[in-house]
Amino acid sequence: MAWDVEGTKRKLLDAATAEFSAFGLAGARVDRIARAAGVNKERIYEHFGKKDELFAAVLLDQLTLAADTVPIRGTGIDAVLDYVGRLFDHHVAVPALARLTAWEGLELGGAVGAEVRTAHVDRKLGAFRAALPGLPEAAARELQLSIVVLVCGWQSLPNVDGLYRDAAASPSARIAARRAETVATIEGRLRAAMPQV
Amino acid sequence: MAWDVEGTKRKLLDAATAEFSAFGLAGARVDRIARAAGVNKERIYEHFGKKDELFAAVLLDQLTLAADTVPIRGTGIDAVLDYVGRLFDHHVAVPALARLTAWEGLELGGAVGAEVRTAHVDRKLGAFRAALPGLPEAAARELQLSIVVLVCGWQSLPNVDGLYRDAAASPSARIAARRAETVATIEGRLRAAMPQV
Repeated sequence: MAWDVEGTKRKLLDAATAEFSAFGLAGARVDRIARAAGVNKERIYEHFGKKDELFAAVLLDQLTLAADTVPIRGTGIDAVLDYVGRLFDHHVAVPALARLTAWEGLELGGAVGAEVRTAHVDRKLGAFRAALPGLPEAAARELQLSIVVLVCGWQSLPNVDGLYRDAAASPSARIAARRAETVATIEGRLRAAMPQV
Repeated sequence: MAWDVEGTKRKLLDAATAEFSAFGLAGARVDRIARAAGVNKERIYEHFGKKDELFAAVLLDQLTLAADTVPIRGTGIDAVLDYVGRLFDHHVAVPALARLTAWEGLELGGAVGAEVRTAHVDRKLGAFRAALPGLPEAAARELQLSIVVLVCGWQSLPNVDGLYRDAAASPSARIAARRAETVATIEGRLRAAMPQV
């Protein structure tokens, strides 16, 4: 059987996503990733390089997944709010990205793969401003950042949520309430910034 | 000279705050904290207990500092927005609390010292609702959570800020812009939730 290089890389990325998401960059162990993937450790170095390069590959893989899964559709404030809700749903379904981003903020301070990610942010900003003609670039940047902080920040702060949430609510009711609040928070900001829309 | 117990505890708390803030719970080293404080390691176990208990003491110490430094003053939406701005300023001046909270979310998931912190949240909610009579408790809880996520989440995500901020802005201009956006985001939500105020 010929070596399935793409299959091996996928298995390694999936195992590395789980490991980095759970333990961060410093706490992750390459031998544990190799064992979980059922792949020889040497293959990791061969395909991805050192541990910090594997972390960068994992983060970019998760960002690509989020961008592909959650496009902005249509125009107007409602289209942006629909996007915010779907982005929230994606981060609930795939908590790894928010956690990886939080580890990166704490452990590295700066963004890995900055060139690729700046291009990604620029594409997102373009789509955002196309949906909301007239929104100045600086306002669009702050709004997009607030969306990421509200959605990813909440996802990676279950400790804080536990202190503020209604303790009687079921897990699904809790998620629905926080989703609605997140969308309403962005809606309030958008309607104040663009009263004419 | 008699032993200065309170002075020793303060030195240990300060050194532990720096260590946990930089490295998190798993990455922090008790011997490094003792060395930085110039205090025998045994004093840590004597005064605070094990590493996770020291982490809890550090977090509660920082929460008390924030609560004492940033009260809600006065009533009405403007009073709450003034509080949000001062809370933002405190977290910029003392970044440890946001980082400790982010580590706790990633490494522990739940809140340490939950009983003390729930009482703290209840006091804050009481002050918040006293400032905004008529605001239902559920809305006050979500709003307070959004304030914490926007302020602390942003502070612990310099990687994400680096991707979205205006690269030409000076550090102080960046902080001023993000402060204004944070206050405006909470203002938009509050004015929509309380149109009669």
